[in-house]
Amino acid sequence: MAGLKIGIIGAGSAVFSMKIISDLCKFPNLSDSHVVLMDIDRVRVENVLILAKELASYFNSKLTFSIVDTIKEVVDGADFVINTAMAGGHGYLDLVRSIGEKHGYYRGIDAQNYNFVSDYLNLTNWNQFTLFLKIARTIEKYSPNAWYLQAANPVFEGTTLVSTQTGIKMVGFCHGHYAVEILANYLGVKEYEWQVGGVNHGIWLTKFSTKDGKDLYGKLNELSEKINFDEFKPTNPFDDQLSPVAWDMYKMYGLFPIGDTVRNSTWKYHRNLQTKIKWYGSPWGGADSELGWKWYVEQLTQVVNVMDMFAKMVKNGTKIDKLRTGTPVDDYLKEILSDKLSGEQHIPFINSIVSKTPARFVVNVLNNGKITNIDNDVAVEICATVCGEEFKFEETLIPKRVVNWYLKPRILLAKQALDAFLNKDVKLISDILERDPRTQSSEQVEKLITELYPIVIKNMKQIEEQV
Amino acid sequence: MAGLKIGIIGAGSAVFSMKIISDLCKFPNLSDSHVVLMDIDRVRVENVLILAKELASYFNSKLTFSIVDTIKEVVDGADFVINTAMAGGHGYLDLVRSIGEKHGYYRGIDAQNYNFVSDYLNLTNWNQFTLFLKIARTIEKYSPNAWYLQAANPVFEGTTLVSTQTGIKMVGFCHGHYAVEILANYLGVKEYEWQVGGVNHGIWLTKFSTKDGKDLYGKLNELSEKINFDEFKPTNPFDDQLSPVAWDMYKMYGLFPIGDTVRNSTWKYHRNLQTKIKWYGSPWGGADSELGWKWYVEQLTQVVNVMDMFAKMVKNGTKIDKLRTGTPVDDYLKEILSDKLSGEQHIPFINSIVSKTPARFVVNVLNNGKITNIDNDVAVEICATVCGEEFKFEETLIPKRVVNWYLKPRILLAKQALDAFLNKDVKLISDILERDPRTQSSEQVEKLITELYPIVIKNMKQIEEQV
Repeated sequence: MAGLKIGIIGAGSAVFSMKIISDLCKFPNLSDSHVVLMDIDRVRVENVLILAKELASYFNSKLTFSIVDTIKEVVDGADFVINTAMAGGHGYLDLVRSIGEKHGYYRGIDAQNYNFVSDYLNLTNWNQFTLFLKIARTIEKYSPNAWYLQAANPVFEGTTLVSTQTGIKMVGFCHGHYAVEILANYLGVKEYEWQVGGVNHGIWLTKFSTKDGKDLYGKLNELSEKINFDEFKPTNPFDDQLSPVAWDMYKMYGLFPIGDTVRNSTWKYHRNLQTKIKWYGSPWGGADSELGWKWYVEQLTQVVNVMDMFAKMVKNGTKIDKLRTGTPVDDYLKEILSDKLSGEQHIPFINSIVSKTPARFVVNVLNNGKITNIDNDVAVEICATVCGEEFKFEETLIPKRVVNWYLKPRILLAKQALDAFLNKDVKLISDILERDPRTQSSEQVEKLITELYPIVIKNMKQIEEQV
Repeated sequence: MAGLKIGIIGAGSAVFSMKIISDLCKFPNLSDSHVVLMDIDRVRVENVLILAKELASYFNSKLTFSIVDTIKEVVDGADFVINTAMAGGHGYLDLVRSIGEKHGYYRGIDAQNYNFVSDYLNLTNWNQFTLFLKIARTIEKYSPNAWYLQAANPVFEGTTLVSTQTGIKMVGFCHGHYAVEILANYLGVKEYEWQVGGVNHGIWLTKFSTKDGKDLYGKLNELSEKINFDEFKPTNPFDDQLSPVAWDMYKMYGLFPIGDTVRNSTWKYHRNLQTKIKWYGSPWGGADSELGWKWYVEQLTQVVNVMDMFAKMVKNGTKIDKLRTGTPVDDYLKEILSDKLSGEQHIPFINSIVSKTPARFVVNVLNNGKITNIDNDVAVEICATVCGEEFKFEETLIPKRVVNWYLKPRILLAKQALDAFLNKDVKLISDILERDPRTQSSEQVEKLITELYPIVIKNMKQIEEQV
């Protein structure tokens, strides 16, 4: 038994925490771990504690739990620290977006070519970057051997920032690559080999074949010719892996974009709601339109409310497997209670590290030559087999078209965003905006900066001052 | 005596050819060279021949001359081939710019962040790229030991293209770095050390000190604080080295931009005529506004007409040192007839190669590690001492700010432009335009492409078919 201490920062995110804890229950090696929960929302994290204990008991697991108030308490003595916190929450997202829109920046100033995911800020999230560094530096000081697993967005910039600014052991995780399954289902293929590579939210299907090595791209091409794109009807705003934009990006870049990559190309697909609807389908125009994002936030709110209700019901004696609300949240819970793993990579990764059981993951780590033709000092998302603390990275060949027309400009944006943050230099933000298609004049940029950046800086300072 | 054969393609450009020939007369080692002139404008090249012979005779030089009709004839047996030709000439520039403007692209589609010089096309100049490659491949075939000296724009993309696509010996030349002198004069400094580096039309003052090593940047900073930018009055549209935009770029990038670099930053300075006037001064708003460019073309036309007249006068017996018109062209001629070298680097460079006389040049050559942090497979502009065929490149340190905020995006544009050309793929041009601040809709892009690219391709084919 490992007897690990595993910290979760942002543990008030109930679905994520339940998934993590459910996964922990399913690895006998890890079931005597102690899980430390931290969240600035005390009510929510206490609700999560109630559900977590009940879940552990449901799985007959020996997991123990505690709630702490400071990053230092999470980190001190920890073997793994998982960070899923979003500094400022959705309130902050809405605020900075609305100030952007007030000054003519549709969907906010963080919406830029190759970066349109609405909770993936990199220009206005100096609070989030500060939090990342604060956690990392606390690890460096109090638990230098601990692993830092970053689930919080922006994973690309965050992993790059922490990996270049500190010396801790770190991996960024995302689950976008599971969307490969959607393509396989579309082809009616049950067993297949696949590989993705690129940067987080900018990953590409670099291998896709049958078990006996027959390339499946040919089949994709065949079927694509028969698609009537006008008929595409998404079942929800996130249902975009087979949307017209995904196929159009495939045509442009030569590889299939996977997962959230489909949300992240150019203004061609994002210019306005009408354009978004054309490419991502009616009625929402994808997850990042005003309509799609509203849908998502409503879903989230419902989940949060239901989880709070679940916690109260459990407190009042209802068994966890008897919880029902008649909402889609029931399905989340059903999955969490099933035998299957959640799909989040964190706990299987911890298991591979601790138990030296080799397993394959899609990880975000500093490039350092893993993918050629792109900078070494940025985080790439790449397939690797992990066993103990050894990573065996797969050779990942990304064609020049993707490198020069997608990855390089995306990487440049990340570097510029991090440069502005590290130097706290709003002049650099202005430079990005002077090149923004939504900018009509330097006065517009100046007015935006004058209103927005005092707020950005105030929120960053709040994080600096928090424990 | 070397007995060289030196070819000039685009030799109808009388001022350039006269400078080259005047320089040749001043190097005793090279004065028995044979100069081969080629230009698709037969009248103009014949006029140049008349003036060239007269000039050689004025300097008592043994230079000989001939006119040829084909690239093969220029190249065959040549030791050096100088290319200054602009495929399609100003008529083509005007045509592609006007089609761009018709579709909402102020100053044409080639005007992009970091590339605003009006005769430095890289998106619509498939004719020019074709010409570059045609000359280079002819050299590869018929005179593989000849040096190709490229004076024609775009020097950055052209040098990159030829150097990566062929194996010939090549250098790109520009004279932008002479603008360092303007800064020195401004400081009242007579003797100084300097170094520039970057990419063509994107070079930066990496060293600037007194002979005894005292940094002159401090003095620049001091003086800059006393400048009243509202009072800046350019003497002509090209008088921009001390314009508000130059100082603003210095503030943003941390090094002083030199020469045409001042014309090449972001839309911040180029959004419209009013913006250009604000930054480059009244009345023209710099060389690349509609007013500045009109001024320049009028000057050029005057020079061409005067040169034609000079040729006629010489033909009728007037001695070259007696030619007068009362126009600024008289000054050009005076300089050409003086003892001084023209300032064009080509002939001193040829002399250093042939006579093994070490001299310092600013050359455009493939990077291959010369400047760190930027791609190896693009041409950089860098200081080098040349002696024989040996180049000693100066260590050139360019700060990250310039690399990440200027050079990398500029380089990316060059790579994308060349990719579009090499694959003749208008889809790639569309992608660039979809990200263009002037684009309002995909329909706008499509209409522009539909009208413009058949013309681009037709003009490219004409070059392919010419001899």
